[in-house]
Amino acid sequence: MTQSIKFYHAGCPVCVSAEKSIVAALDATRFDIEVVHLGQTPDRIDEAKRAGVQSVPALLFGEEVLHINHGADLSAL
Amino acid sequence: MTQSIKFYHAGCPVCVSAEKSIVAALDATRFDIEVVHLGQTPDRIDEAKRAGVQSVPALLFGEEVLHINHGADLSAL
Repeated sequence: MTQSIKFYHAGCPVCVSAEKSIVAALDATRFDIEVVHLGQTPDRIDEAKRAGVQSVPALLFGEEVLHINHGADLSAL
Repeated sequence: MTQSIKFYHAGCPVCVSAEKSIVAALDATRFDIEVVHLGQTPDRIDEAKRAGVQSVPALLFGEEVLHINHGADLSAL
């Protein structure tokens, strides 16, 4: 079974840069990678908050949140 | 040619956690991944600083630094 990884972002320059580097470097054969643009799908902001995401870009590995650099606080979306 | 990725850390809990999740999820067939423990190799702290690393854990993709969560400032090492 492939593990799920979610990448939450908001289209900001820091987000786009992180997506091009780290998300592109993940092993897609072992992980099910979903890219979630919270600016385009604001109905998913609550889901991100519940998972512990405080700012974007962020990667969610199972229940572990990794905040990568800092593009925008979730509260600003 | 495989691209180089360096993971700088200092053995802190946040670092170990990031290594187990994100570093383990990188595609090792496309990238040459080096894990650098700055606590054990303090002579490489200057190299990390010059690359733009301000805190650990951090991933260096070519010239792009991605700070992941926050374990310790480089100045504290």
